[in-house]
Amino acid sequence: MATHLETLETPVPIVDLDRLTHNLDRMAAYATLHDLRLRPHVKTHKSPRIATEQLQRGAVGLTCATTQELEVMAEVCDDLLFAYPPVGAARLERLMRLPEHVRLTVAVDHVDSLPALGMAARLGRRDVEVYVEVDVGMKRVGVPSSAAAVALARAVRETDGLDFAGITFYPGHVREPVDEQGRGIAQLSAALAELQEALLDAGLAPRVISGGSTPLAWRIHEVAGVTEVRPGTYVYNDRTTAAINACDWDDCALTVLATVVSTAVPGQAVVDAGTKALAREPLRGDGDGWAAVLDRPEVVVTRMSEEHGVLDLSHSDWRPRVGDRVRLVPNHVCIVVQQFDEVVGVRGDWVETSWPVAARGRGAIALTQDSGPRRPRIA
Amino acid sequence: MATHLETLETPVPIVDLDRLTHNLDRMAAYATLHDLRLRPHVKTHKSPRIATEQLQRGAVGLTCATTQELEVMAEVCDDLLFAYPPVGAARLERLMRLPEHVRLTVAVDHVDSLPALGMAARLGRRDVEVYVEVDVGMKRVGVPSSAAAVALARAVRETDGLDFAGITFYPGHVREPVDEQGRGIAQLSAALAELQEALLDAGLAPRVISGGSTPLAWRIHEVAGVTEVRPGTYVYNDRTTAAINACDWDDCALTVLATVVSTAVPGQAVVDAGTKALAREPLRGDGDGWAAVLDRPEVVVTRMSEEHGVLDLSHSDWRPRVGDRVRLVPNHVCIVVQQFDEVVGVRGDWVETSWPVAARGRGAIALTQDSGPRRPRIA
Repeated sequence: MATHLETLETPVPIVDLDRLTHNLDRMAAYATLHDLRLRPHVKTHKSPRIATEQLQRGAVGLTCATTQELEVMAEVCDDLLFAYPPVGAARLERLMRLPEHVRLTVAVDHVDSLPALGMAARLGRRDVEVYVEVDVGMKRVGVPSSAAAVALARAVRETDGLDFAGITFYPGHVREPVDEQGRGIAQLSAALAELQEALLDAGLAPRVISGGSTPLAWRIHEVAGVTEVRPGTYVYNDRTTAAINACDWDDCALTVLATVVSTAVPGQAVVDAGTKALAREPLRGDGDGWAAVLDRPEVVVTRMSEEHGVLDLSHSDWRPRVGDRVRLVPNHVCIVVQQFDEVVGVRGDWVETSWPVAARGRGAIALTQDSGPRRPRIA
Repeated sequence: MATHLETLETPVPIVDLDRLTHNLDRMAAYATLHDLRLRPHVKTHKSPRIATEQLQRGAVGLTCATTQELEVMAEVCDDLLFAYPPVGAARLERLMRLPEHVRLTVAVDHVDSLPALGMAARLGRRDVEVYVEVDVGMKRVGVPSSAAAVALARAVRETDGLDFAGITFYPGHVREPVDEQGRGIAQLSAALAELQEALLDAGLAPRVISGGSTPLAWRIHEVAGVTEVRPGTYVYNDRTTAAINACDWDDCALTVLATVVSTAVPGQAVVDAGTKALAREPLRGDGDGWAAVLDRPEVVVTRMSEEHGVLDLSHSDWRPRVGDRVRLVPNHVCIVVQQFDEVVGVRGDWVETSWPVAARGRGAIALTQDSGPRRPRIA
């Protein structure tokens, strides 16, 4: 017995399994071609089943941004990178309580993080590899200069329990083509070459140079010295990835299936996907709106409230009826997946499987109090 | 044994229980004072525990926007309004399978919805009360005129299994004070008075006139004929509610506790609350940014990525260190709650309880296929 897409309650995230396969295969082939270690970021799918597909295609390990992602991915992988500042006692303790089989690497951007991280590593009886996080222009986290990177790498080497493994950077602000000369990548490459020279001069040769981001994924091999890549979005892709030419429209594997619930206001149709399904993420690149209809990309969601999305019909002859269904390509798929507990896998119009977004959320909150059978008074 | 706030891993949504109590009491008193039936919208808290507090303070029932909310709230309430178009077979079947004790009211804005809704009500052996949804200027859902409302109400009355109960409208676009004359409310009131007269002339006297929205909540009694109110946000409030003067800053009960994880870039501090904690919702009213620090409202989150929020320090002398913690007031609290599985209740700096966001998500996806022990191939 198979389930037809029409029978699902909406809104629901559906993944075209053939497109997912294509996306997984293509990135694995790219990494192999350019001799890059592929360490996908799981933030997009948050699913150990998809992570397993990535590992089976040659990924050397996984990248995580939360302790919840680390714990869930430890079930299927023994080489995890925590690409997030290891700050705070609760976070550090959760890191150190990961299963013993996990080889743990942590990204650090400040010498102040090292005493607590080193202490936790020693008491937690595990060796922690450290990437020094370098800011290459994103202005988010990362040390701002080669000199600062060298100083931090030296401090890592001098901390018992920590091992300086390499450099990590996130070029999320770099878009190609920036212009005809591809200047964005050239500048990035020059900065990284200078950094590597400074590290070598200091006797701190990095074993790994790890770069990230789907937007730059297909050209990251042009950046000097990069040995590892951490793309995340490529498994599903989204409207932004297509708008910046980092994928084709037909590579968008995840859509939100939605139902037209009202046509009461002329010139528009209201669907049951609002901010609690699509999220409110701007399109990077040319174009307006919060999502577009898969087979009518000229029809976009122009307004939203929590459970309503308004399709603007002014650029289309299409006049949907109440009850009609659409597949919406969201601007930013990572945030969409976060809204749901489950994702449905389809081929054509038929449901083939479904899987939990197992690493969404933060995990149970551990309270030391005894709540007992009688719950404390809320109000 | 009690838990201090400092021991919690961040980001985590925390609710000041004293403020929550104040907010619950104040709205209940307002409804009593003006002889309004209070039917709070659960979209904000999605929690049967808080719904119970609302019912204990005299709420006549609850308002829901999703079938998941209806199912969860049926555990604590026997009078539920589905303030959403009842479109789609899966949604209708879930509606009709609610426990028998639930008195169900559904909002409808199109005659095309009635055949399927009536059929489902008759086969599901339950009487369904119907509110006719009227657009009062929001341009989202709702019939556009009094004549259309009368026609739809008549069609409801003529459908077996359905009972015309009243009128519902959502004045989410109306803000007060619009100007010194309070014109927004005056116009709304005039439109509703005309509608009620048209219904009476047609022999379709509404038993209920149901209006909504926290922004207008404290003045909804000024709107002609309103008998029922459906505010949601008031339990927690947020930066927008304060910015439009629908609450005081000190009435903001829910904040996101976050930790400073990087100060590497001068003039800013990075916290561990990004779009997957705060969501990216614009502030309505004066002001920029995505969230503000509770006790330093001049410090706002100006940039975000999925797990990072950038605090702009340019309007403050405050220079936080890595590891410092802040309580962030989000622009739109309903979307923040949706990001988390649990909320923590605090008094001062001490944790007193926690509760699940039980009605978040969409519920398990019912597939007719037999997945069996061997999971279908994903890719």
